[in-house]
Amino acid sequence: MENQDYHMTPEQFRIEGKKIIDWIADYYQQIEKYPVLSQVKPGEILSVLPENPPQKGESMDSMMKDIDEKIMPGITHWQSPNFFAYFPSNTSFPSILGDLVSSGLGVQGMIWATSPAATELETRVLDWLAEMMGMPEKFKSTSSGGGVIQDTASTSALTAIIAARERATKFESNQKGVRQKLVAYISTQTHSSLEKAIKMAGIGKDNLRLIDVDEHFAMQPELLRKEIQTDKEAGLIPFFICGALGTTSSNAMDPLRKIGEIANREECWFHIDAAMSGTAMLCPEFRHLMDGVELADSYCFNPHKWMFTNFDCDVFWVANRNELINTFSILPEYLKNKATASGAVFDYRDWHVQLGRRFRSLKLWFVIRHYGVEGLQFHIRKHIKLSQLFTKWVEDSADFELVVEPPLNLVCFRHKNGDEFNMKLMNAVNETGKVFFTHTKLNGQVVLRMSIGQTFTDEQHLTKAWDLISTTAKEL
Amino acid sequence: MENQDYHMTPEQFRIEGKKIIDWIADYYQQIEKYPVLSQVKPGEILSVLPENPPQKGESMDSMMKDIDEKIMPGITHWQSPNFFAYFPSNTSFPSILGDLVSSGLGVQGMIWATSPAATELETRVLDWLAEMMGMPEKFKSTSSGGGVIQDTASTSALTAIIAARERATKFESNQKGVRQKLVAYISTQTHSSLEKAIKMAGIGKDNLRLIDVDEHFAMQPELLRKEIQTDKEAGLIPFFICGALGTTSSNAMDPLRKIGEIANREECWFHIDAAMSGTAMLCPEFRHLMDGVELADSYCFNPHKWMFTNFDCDVFWVANRNELINTFSILPEYLKNKATASGAVFDYRDWHVQLGRRFRSLKLWFVIRHYGVEGLQFHIRKHIKLSQLFTKWVEDSADFELVVEPPLNLVCFRHKNGDEFNMKLMNAVNETGKVFFTHTKLNGQVVLRMSIGQTFTDEQHLTKAWDLISTTAKEL
Repeated sequence: MENQDYHMTPEQFRIEGKKIIDWIADYYQQIEKYPVLSQVKPGEILSVLPENPPQKGESMDSMMKDIDEKIMPGITHWQSPNFFAYFPSNTSFPSILGDLVSSGLGVQGMIWATSPAATELETRVLDWLAEMMGMPEKFKSTSSGGGVIQDTASTSALTAIIAARERATKFESNQKGVRQKLVAYISTQTHSSLEKAIKMAGIGKDNLRLIDVDEHFAMQPELLRKEIQTDKEAGLIPFFICGALGTTSSNAMDPLRKIGEIANREECWFHIDAAMSGTAMLCPEFRHLMDGVELADSYCFNPHKWMFTNFDCDVFWVANRNELINTFSILPEYLKNKATASGAVFDYRDWHVQLGRRFRSLKLWFVIRHYGVEGLQFHIRKHIKLSQLFTKWVEDSADFELVVEPPLNLVCFRHKNGDEFNMKLMNAVNETGKVFFTHTKLNGQVVLRMSIGQTFTDEQHLTKAWDLISTTAKEL
Repeated sequence: MENQDYHMTPEQFRIEGKKIIDWIADYYQQIEKYPVLSQVKPGEILSVLPENPPQKGESMDSMMKDIDEKIMPGITHWQSPNFFAYFPSNTSFPSILGDLVSSGLGVQGMIWATSPAATELETRVLDWLAEMMGMPEKFKSTSSGGGVIQDTASTSALTAIIAARERATKFESNQKGVRQKLVAYISTQTHSSLEKAIKMAGIGKDNLRLIDVDEHFAMQPELLRKEIQTDKEAGLIPFFICGALGTTSSNAMDPLRKIGEIANREECWFHIDAAMSGTAMLCPEFRHLMDGVELADSYCFNPHKWMFTNFDCDVFWVANRNELINTFSILPEYLKNKATASGAVFDYRDWHVQLGRRFRSLKLWFVIRHYGVEGLQFHIRKHIKLSQLFTKWVEDSADFELVVEPPLNLVCFRHKNGDEFNMKLMNAVNETGKVFFTHTKLNGQVVLRMSIGQTFTDEQHLTKAWDLISTTAKEL
């Protein structure tokens, strides 16, 4: 250590910080050299990390050397243009820089007073986004609702379910615990986080109905209606319905208007989970998919999936913010302040589970301002065109078949040789390290998924991926 | 836009990134020029931000100009050495750099396979920390337990309560909903997040007992014992007790051994919330405060408070990881993989609420390696010595009095002129912008709090703060 107090000085930070900026730029320029899916075995990374913490400080050079030598082999490269697995979790240089400013400022925006700019920029950016996405007025802060940044769609689902529970029980569950016979409804294809949230909120899995889907894997509203009827006749209280604007497994689009009409009629909270596909609403030509959104009580989508904003950044909008605040608000003496008492400000810690808050709107602001609405639209349209191209290749192939018509940027397909062959094919391709894609099951059958949405994915990457998949299939 | 695809190129990123590194270094060098507490009025920042999103992309220069002119006036400077409010939420240059590497890599470590290094570095670093803090073996991954990084202590509390609920009901609550008459115990001084978590988990506020405290504001174990007895006689099921290693209001230390013995005997889950003060356990001379920790089922502390690691980073340890995993695990088809099936790896998404995970162990790794154990100890000891110095000034003063003996780095004091005067004094000092500190209430009386733990706080800052407080008191 040069300085006796162990701190890195601002001058050292300038030097080390700039080296890391270059390291990141180098990483993106060389990213295709790495195997997309990490090829290490369980315990391999652990075994090269020292068992005991250092007593004396070490240099940044030694740390960055360890990143290169010990950490990089264990990285699965989500930012590679050859990453087609799960869902995109893309980022962009402006987002990285916005997040860097946030780390530098190190403000904790739990309430308005602890950094007014952190609260008010978030309010403004989420109102911008509502406009950019064609969301109804009621979801804006200038109306009865508003948005808040959450970490993930899982937490948004939990937040929505708890607020719904309190509305349905007139805040009795918060007071007495879950005593009433509440029932919630999702489809068989809804994301697992909904089941997890239903458990966490004390509702219980037995009180979650999985409504069957149609041939496009979308919820059947008529079955939903019947199930609610049955439950009501049994003395149960329907309180929550989740519709998916794009399921995780196959990107199925639930009929939101029909579900919303049932929800409104039955006085159920209607939550829309648009985690990945919500980003497509940037383009007016895809907004037919969210027809009925004005019937929703809450809606979430993740700029950290497909909108070039680094994890974590989930946008959660509600139609009536008071229902949310009345559910989550707690005000201990040590957080009381004039601004909160005046009622003129939002204290976002009352809008969700956590108290502490990072200044996450900065990265979103940087992304929106760097690309502009037209730049973001350009990339979403490009990804969807690439998906259509891949779809055509599958349809033109003798060996493969399309499983469902892709509404946006996820192509579900399979080789005609059956489940075992498809799994073998996928593993063989992934083990080359050149491409990484994953599978699901639909109607009990193994289905391969190409999820197209990485920041730098171009036609050349997709072409190479398809060549590799089809060649490997022939070889096996 | 120079390039037709709207992206920032790696070369532009090198230039813009280095400018922001310099901007951050400049910020820390000039931080004392800003008013610590933002002086803006509600709506002031909002009013200078455009109402509509930009259609066309904008330059980084225009964004950074807006940061300087529009955002900075609305920042409350948590990283100022003159920040003594609430609790520290400090950071350090190595942490900012670790977080930058994480943003750059952009990996999503939800399960082992999606980036083995993100999982295994986290496991190793939290085992290091367990050793650094003198935690019992059972909390290490090499034993029955292990640690996981959560966002906040609020979420850790919720996680502990839900796992406790499931253990107590033999996983019946997850299945059927909360039906049994569960009761939880905290003290009147326990953090508000516990009450919030009890509500969220469907237990209900009526089933949360607030045990009275002694003259040091620590929970009275004898009253806890009696309350449990009463509840059992009423047919209720005690299931969860939280002890505080440092309450938020006054840094009171609950008698953990006595509480733990009761918890173990009554088969209640024992959670220890050491959010801020846990960091002091780096120094063996303060570990008497955690006497009894081996009786705990879970324990959390926040490196993002007092350990130079930027928000968010809460460390949550459990004694028995299987209880946690059995509570939170869900495995949809699209996340199945060989490593998970082998049982040889941790999938941390099963250890908490969220599915998605940022690579947060990097910043913790950088901090521990940069400072070394001895560098971290140096700063904790320095902060505690500064608190003792401030305590002496208060005791030597004719106008002020100490409210409780500070165990660590929080000094609770008040002017002898009564509540109204203390509030007036605090507001007057904070409005100068030179210092920011906050208040609480203890025994119904307003108490001023000096929370000493910012990264760059030295004796000179504390001296100036005390001069300002005592001079202002004389002038009022």
